[in-house]
Amino acid sequence: MHNQLEQFASDNYSGICPQALEYMLKANEGSAPAYGNDEWTQKATDYFRELFEIDCEVFFAFNGTAANSLSLAALCQSYHSVICHETSHIETDECGAPEFASNGSKLLLAKGENGKLTAQAIESLVTKRTDIHYPKPKVISITQATEVGTLYSLDELAAIKETARKHNLKIHMDGARFANAVAAMNKTPAEISWKSGVDVLCFCGTKNGMALGEAIIFFNKALAEDFDYRCKQAGQLASKMRFISAPWLGLLETGAWLKNARHANQCAEYLENKLISIDGVEMMFPREANAVFAKLPEHTIKILKEKGWQFYTFIGVGGVRFVSSWNTTQSRIDELVNDIKDSI
Amino acid sequence: MHNQLEQFASDNYSGICPQALEYMLKANEGSAPAYGNDEWTQKATDYFRELFEIDCEVFFAFNGTAANSLSLAALCQSYHSVICHETSHIETDECGAPEFASNGSKLLLAKGENGKLTAQAIESLVTKRTDIHYPKPKVISITQATEVGTLYSLDELAAIKETARKHNLKIHMDGARFANAVAAMNKTPAEISWKSGVDVLCFCGTKNGMALGEAIIFFNKALAEDFDYRCKQAGQLASKMRFISAPWLGLLETGAWLKNARHANQCAEYLENKLISIDGVEMMFPREANAVFAKLPEHTIKILKEKGWQFYTFIGVGGVRFVSSWNTTQSRIDELVNDIKDSI
Amino acid sequence: MHNQLEQFASDNYSGICPQALEYMLKANEGSAPAYGNDEWTQKATDYFRELFEIDCEVFFAFNGTAANSLSLAALCQSYHSVICHETSHIETDECGAPEFASNGSKLLLAKGENGKLTAQAIESLVTKRTDIHYPKPKVISITQATEVGTLYSLDELAAIKETARKHNLKIHMDGARFANAVAAMNKTPAEISWKSGVDVLCFCGTKNGMALGEAIIFFNKALAEDFDYRCKQAGQLASKMRFISAPWLGLLETGAWLKNARHANQCAEYLENKLISIDGVEMMFPREANAVFAKLPEHTIKILKEKGWQFYTFIGVGGVRFVSSWNTTQSRIDELVNDIKDSI
Amino acid sequence: MHNQLEQFASDNYSGICPQALEYMLKANEGSAPAYGNDEWTQKATDYFRELFEIDCEVFFAFNGTAANSLSLAALCQSYHSVICHETSHIETDECGAPEFASNGSKLLLAKGENGKLTAQAIESLVTKRTDIHYPKPKVISITQATEVGTLYSLDELAAIKETARKHNLKIHMDGARFANAVAAMNKTPAEISWKSGVDVLCFCGTKNGMALGEAIIFFNKALAEDFDYRCKQAGQLASKMRFISAPWLGLLETGAWLKNARHANQCAEYLENKLISIDGVEMMFPREANAVFAKLPEHTIKILKEKGWQFYTFIGVGGVRFVSSWNTTQSRIDELVNDIKDSI
Repeated sequence: MHNQLEQFASDNYSGICPQALEYMLKANEGSAPAYGNDEWTQKATDYFRELFEIDCEVFFAFNGTAANSLSLAALCQSYHSVICHETSHIETDECGAPEFASNGSKLLLAKGENGKLTAQAIESLVTKRTDIHYPKPKVISITQATEVGTLYSLDELAAIKETARKHNLKIHMDGARFANAVAAMNKTPAEISWKSGVDVLCFCGTKNGMALGEAIIFFNKALAEDFDYRCKQAGQLASKMRFISAPWLGLLETGAWLKNARHANQCAEYLENKLISIDGVEMMFPREANAVFAKLPEHTIKILKEKGWQFYTFIGVGGVRFVSSWNTTQSRIDELVNDIKDSI
Repeated sequence: MHNQLEQFASDNYSGICPQALEYMLKANEGSAPAYGNDEWTQKATDYFRELFEIDCEVFFAFNGTAANSLSLAALCQSYHSVICHETSHIETDECGAPEFASNGSKLLLAKGENGKLTAQAIESLVTKRTDIHYPKPKVISITQATEVGTLYSLDELAAIKETARKHNLKIHMDGARFANAVAAMNKTPAEISWKSGVDVLCFCGTKNGMALGEAIIFFNKALAEDFDYRCKQAGQLASKMRFISAPWLGLLETGAWLKNARHANQCAEYLENKLISIDGVEMMFPREANAVFAKLPEHTIKILKEKGWQFYTFIGVGGVRFVSSWNTTQSRIDELVNDIKDSI
Repeated sequence: MHNQLEQFASDNYSGICPQALEYMLKANEGSAPAYGNDEWTQKATDYFRELFEIDCEVFFAFNGTAANSLSLAALCQSYHSVICHETSHIETDECGAPEFASNGSKLLLAKGENGKLTAQAIESLVTKRTDIHYPKPKVISITQATEVGTLYSLDELAAIKETARKHNLKIHMDGARFANAVAAMNKTPAEISWKSGVDVLCFCGTKNGMALGEAIIFFNKALAEDFDYRCKQAGQLASKMRFISAPWLGLLETGAWLKNARHANQCAEYLENKLISIDGVEMMFPREANAVFAKLPEHTIKILKEKGWQFYTFIGVGGVRFVSSWNTTQSRIDELVNDIKDSI
Repeated sequence: MHNQLEQFASDNYSGICPQALEYMLKANEGSAPAYGNDEWTQKATDYFRELFEIDCEVFFAFNGTAANSLSLAALCQSYHSVICHETSHIETDECGAPEFASNGSKLLLAKGENGKLTAQAIESLVTKRTDIHYPKPKVISITQATEVGTLYSLDELAAIKETARKHNLKIHMDGARFANAVAAMNKTPAEISWKSGVDVLCFCGTKNGMALGEAIIFFNKALAEDFDYRCKQAGQLASKMRFISAPWLGLLETGAWLKNARHANQCAEYLENKLISIDGVEMMFPREANAVFAKLPEHTIKILKEKGWQFYTFIGVGGVRFVSSWNTTQSRIDELVNDIKDSI
């Protein structure tokens, strides 16, 4: 009854969107120089500079774990540390990739409401230890949108920027759902990245509709020195690079990157509105991007799973996550909502 | 006059072959579980077991540098060393990836005719130093077909296997052009891999006609313990894995992997035969797979470059490499040959 | 008024004890083969085997950070994790050395009363995450005596051993104050190490009265394979090894290792008894080895510091640590106590 | 007949010289703050600044392997490379420590007469590969005196400095026998280090008469940023630091560092003069510091070994190395020479 299309597990369960695919197919005509020395890569790179309204350095990596860990490694040495939220992907879901890529940097974990770091929490971690027996903080990593589907406001970003400058910290932004953030906030990409103090952004293409591929964007160009060597050494330089850069160009040139994100956000909003009105469903976090976190009765969760719905659960707390993506449909949301209503 | 299709620079300048593309498009229907928990990945993995006639462990990585360096890291610790030919890709073209992935393993370089390690050369490196002040040899890495387009015969592989067993060394095979080797030797994949003592094979899909994607095949399953964690940590676990595994299945199920390789080999043979008959052209290595290495007069090389032909040159020696791939055409080879004849 | 001898900051503020010095001077007669191929090293190594009543593998490292991090690296790969107490030295005071030596292993922190891990806490961490997106637990690290001066009882060790065996975890013991634990518990070294499931022990000589030097003792000999290469590569192989091994032999042969530890424990006990009777002083942890943790009024702490007393404080909680060592004297303890009484 | 004092194997077979020992014993009076916050460390550090006539940053490490590998790691990233002579200690005798400490930097080996790098050889390596598929050269490492007992002249150093500046390379000096070089060249420490372009020097105390201990001296202070953290993380921060820094002060203040080196050089010169006059003995390299390399008949080598003489041999070439040190005596050299004469 429910085929895979009905999943709400993750935006990485979705396939390739039409625009990304179209450009991939175009790029497949004929041969092209390897390792990024092709026209698609040049064009995509330039497009990012235009989109972000700044002369930035752009690199491509295969996935988000690589993009995050290599860019963090570029910002600190093995004896430095990275301040991040305790729910951040780099801490909870990358199997120690940041520690590996940097040869040992420690992640310093902060708590914070709605999955967000605060200037105070950062300050507290920075000043807690200042002796050589503990890794020296060098980077703040923030995720926009966060792992719990919330957004850092411009004010919150400004406060973090100030703290970063005060303590000479670099700012890394995990943009696994950066497009969703842009779409939701109605701000320009520049405003919520480098204008807010971000030194390097990992802009995720996979969750936005590509087969795979991340853009690592250094606004602070000095930090990008020899970063191409780093990517190569870490096994992140695609020989047939055009199959990553062309789909990126497809997303950017056609505007699909924003359209996909907006669609996913709207689907989540639609679902949120439906859920709020159901007795027995409780929202866990403000829904601000394309993910809805809610508490459902255990028996409801059980029934949904039996019916084939796919979504993540948080053991013991009755929490579930429903993520929408570029190919989520309203009718499927309605079906999900009906199944919830029927089983609550 | 010459568009990119006429290149002879590398098989990674070619695009996606029809069969790989067809399966990628099929895999794009609907959503699918991430991180390899999809049907395509299961099927591709099983197909490898069938093809190699053994219950092996199969993993996918994004590119050859990653596949080689991570599998080598699984075979040795940081204070161990890897014996390889001085022209091997892991030494000359991976920017220190093996050293990085293993946190410091040293490559011990051997010379050897036609790009091949010999049992004697290995023996010599193993016995040269046996004190703790020098990294202990633990792995032999061989490339099949080699970087200079030659092949290890079954006898040569047997001799290496014996040396490996004598000194308790593991055998890694860089199969950047493994398909070409199988096609050229008229042996089964099993015969030139695990039956010849290979513990782990990095089987390249990119050069064989995929957009990207390597299969890492552990015939020695004990060495694969927790290798999935290693891939994840190194940023080599694709979330939308199906877009790597489905094209692999396409290559395997349709037989395209062997057909593509055979075609490339035949193109190279055709080119070789033409070149041999030209006065002033000298072959550098026996042509055994899909690459032709030849010495041309410097002025010829210059004219070819000016005409837009793409190929690698070896500075100072007048050497060039012409690589053919799944989409090389006879007519373009004829054009190249004519341009050589005209300019010699 | 107070010279350095009156310090209670740490047992590593104390110098070389007479027995260690005597053997160091003896070892200085004449030349000797480098890198541990001398008689002193052979004798010290053999003495450890006798002391621990088992045929173990013994290595020497320069300091505790190195001993801990290299032995942990021998027990796990970069994508594995080490379970330890949140107050453990490897977490709080080694500047990310375990992550560096292992190329990225993560420390999983458990809370627990009196600085001790419990079987339940370990179990909880092991079972919390079992997917490949999070480092796989492979090692339990316990400190005996703990960072807060307490001891794991044989029963507690047995419970941890059982949990380790159940989940296939290795056990590492940070023995920064192992001698103090032996002295305090009235058990044999074997009983509180390998008989309690410990695979590898880092036995600290520095805090016990040496200038420097740790013994890394593998009871599980399989884990020690090529560990000499690991030490060499990490810069932990002394060329003039005898100046580490001879003092160790001095401590062991003369019984000074136990005498020094017993003396330090008794000093701490003496201090504890004095402090308990002072109104306004509150003990923070049970005093079981050579460290006393107490809460003092902030103004008392201030006055003691002004008088030149050296000790560690814990910011904000009014806590102080007084550590005694082989050269602590009763008269200085009396002076300290008097100064506390006078200023409370 | 020959006890250990007669060895010519290495200067690290010798014990602690009187001056180093005297200061170590002085430093053992009373307690002292740990981790280098003691007076001895301050004084030794200051003395180095005076000796080198520059405001440099000074750190201490336990041995030469650590000093070399950590300082190299401070000069390059994992995807960079270090140019060194093929006989350099970092290549041949540190078990991959530089690769480990830097997480993968490659050593690029140059040949060169008398164990010395030349500007031409460096130039050749730097320009050989400039693509991202090969580690980018970032550092030149030179050893003064070299592994074969020769010296870089001021002119040779100047040529290397010029090449370094031209290609933006840093210069690391392995000073395992730096004192011997100063003594032999009759130049100031400043002249053959920072005035010759050296950015960081590893000055060996162990071979000069200490029990252990190296000084890492950054003349380029910017490169020393957070180097104390690096040492700590790598297990190279001594808790009882005074037992390394005080002996250093002993060597420096008393002038023993130079006296010891001069004595060792003179012993080697004396031996050289004796050997030259023996028929059947052939010198392998110019003797310029404290090591004599000579070819002896195989039967002579065999007899010397049987008589108990200790020295290094180079397999297959009939070569031997005789190293003298601070405690070598003329009478023992005479005995050695006599035994050679008798057995040739």
